[in-house]
Amino acid sequence: MGREFQLIQRYLSLYGAGPQVTLGVGDDAAVLNLPPNTELVVSTDALVEGTHFPELTLPEHIATRAIGTATSDLAAMAAEPLAMTIALTLPSADELWLHSFSQGLAKAVQQFSLPLVGGDLTRGPLSVTVTVNGTVPAGRALGRGGARPGDRLCVTHTLGDAAAGLALVSGLWDPDHTLTSDQEQFLEDRFYQPTPRLDWAGWLRDNATAAIDISDGLLADVGHLARASGLGCRLDSSRLPFSAPLATVNRQQRLDWALAGGDDYELAVAVPVGVELPAHLTPVGEFVTGDGVECDYMPGGQSGYDHFGA
Amino acid sequence: MGREFQLIQRYLSLYGAGPQVTLGVGDDAAVLNLPPNTELVVSTDALVEGTHFPELTLPEHIATRAIGTATSDLAAMAAEPLAMTIALTLPSADELWLHSFSQGLAKAVQQFSLPLVGGDLTRGPLSVTVTVNGTVPAGRALGRGGARPGDRLCVTHTLGDAAAGLALVSGLWDPDHTLTSDQEQFLEDRFYQPTPRLDWAGWLRDNATAAIDISDGLLADVGHLARASGLGCRLDSSRLPFSAPLATVNRQQRLDWALAGGDDYELAVAVPVGVELPAHLTPVGEFVTGDGVECDYMPGGQSGYDHFGA
Repeated sequence: MGREFQLIQRYLSLYGAGPQVTLGVGDDAAVLNLPPNTELVVSTDALVEGTHFPELTLPEHIATRAIGTATSDLAAMAAEPLAMTIALTLPSADELWLHSFSQGLAKAVQQFSLPLVGGDLTRGPLSVTVTVNGTVPAGRALGRGGARPGDRLCVTHTLGDAAAGLALVSGLWDPDHTLTSDQEQFLEDRFYQPTPRLDWAGWLRDNATAAIDISDGLLADVGHLARASGLGCRLDSSRLPFSAPLATVNRQQRLDWALAGGDDYELAVAVPVGVELPAHLTPVGEFVTGDGVECDYMPGGQSGYDHFGA
Repeated sequence: MGREFQLIQRYLSLYGAGPQVTLGVGDDAAVLNLPPNTELVVSTDALVEGTHFPELTLPEHIATRAIGTATSDLAAMAAEPLAMTIALTLPSADELWLHSFSQGLAKAVQQFSLPLVGGDLTRGPLSVTVTVNGTVPAGRALGRGGARPGDRLCVTHTLGDAAAGLALVSGLWDPDHTLTSDQEQFLEDRFYQPTPRLDWAGWLRDNATAAIDISDGLLADVGHLARASGLGCRLDSSRLPFSAPLATVNRQQRLDWALAGGDDYELAVAVPVGVELPAHLTPVGEFVTGDGVECDYMPGGQSGYDHFGA
């Protein structure tokens, strides 16, 4: 048996069990059973060293970040997790690297109930491609295009934390000791271990008209939501929800991170007026006829993250 | 709208239609409907420049090869194609490159009835990760582990062509003008445009006990089949099926390519004695109690392709 196969067997076959898995890692393909009367939800995301995470990022963090960001697309469709596959490209077959990666993998598989049912391990520049599969009751997937004029724009939890965390780990931000080490750790975790909002699926299917996950900054992603719905959107910067650590940061900095920083993987959703909002869902704007996104504060020059932008 | 999104929209959203596609490219995830009483079959494969295809390979050929090899895993499970996603990592947003790639993509989507429902385009070293989704009637997926003692080992079509094609395009083989230019083209196409044997799915589900696709050379892949079935296998090199171009090549060279060359993406299947074999399915050996793969001819030192091998 080739060494590649031994490595795959050891590290990628440990996390593939579940009642939905008829056949896991080790055959030509995995076989999965879906609940009756559901549709399949599929999304793929590639993370490349240097582009999506800093060099020398811990492999454990590469795993949690890659899987978290991919899984967030399921949350944005109001889908339930089913299973995932991972294609991993590594410069060399490094057992220590794989051991650390597998720790992040194990954490994500358990946290998101997303067994790993297929893997491909290849020699090459470091990258991780995660393809996630989920299910929704047939006809109930929540797309981007359903917002109506008057719907409230709401966001889950808090914004800007991940961009602050990236600035911290990249050495681009010195918080001048206004933060405790616990608060710094919280912000770094928000970048390395994004939490896809899978637990909102049921509420969103019953109450929301459109949703997107915030990967490129609130302005850019709300722009996608508004455009897909054929509407405009007005944001009120004074209503953006911030975590305790960011509440201590100067206002302009935290607004820049929330509006244009990206990487939060919170959800931006459209909710009709009259629907009672649960905890951790904050109204921050309103959908209107027209187009474009307006905000009383605009970050300097930026409107989101564009991999191939100028 | 960012340039990345424009490129994705233009090149990756053209090929996503089909009755099985509820929602294609352009939202957070795709939504697919499966036929009733089926299970989902999933596999992912990454192709990296320099490792899986020569540098300066035409983007059209990168597409057909990446999609063909991934789709071959569906064929090996006796599954029907449903849809695919592609994560593409490119050093720069090169319109000419994407245009050529999309030509191969269009060809594969049509040939394999496999709409492209999700894409991710990222800046980085050139690689293509294809994740394929298929379906099988519930409980009917054909794994590697079902062969029984006495079953015949059979292979579809011909072997060794792709390895000969790779030798040709890599300048490692000069056929000394014993081949016509049409024959050389045939061999190169067999490397760049592998044909997943999807049309065998129905026959295999009804008649075969185990199957694998031949990506690493017949010896290595039959080894996987035999091991998964808890058996050994005896091969008869005189029965290996060759195409007309390879029949003119010296015997040792063509046996090396067939047994250890890889990249053919034909199927190796176990078929019980008594089952009538259709055209293009050739018996080349027999499963036996015990373990290991025996052949009257063994290629020098090699037993297949191992990405991380010594």
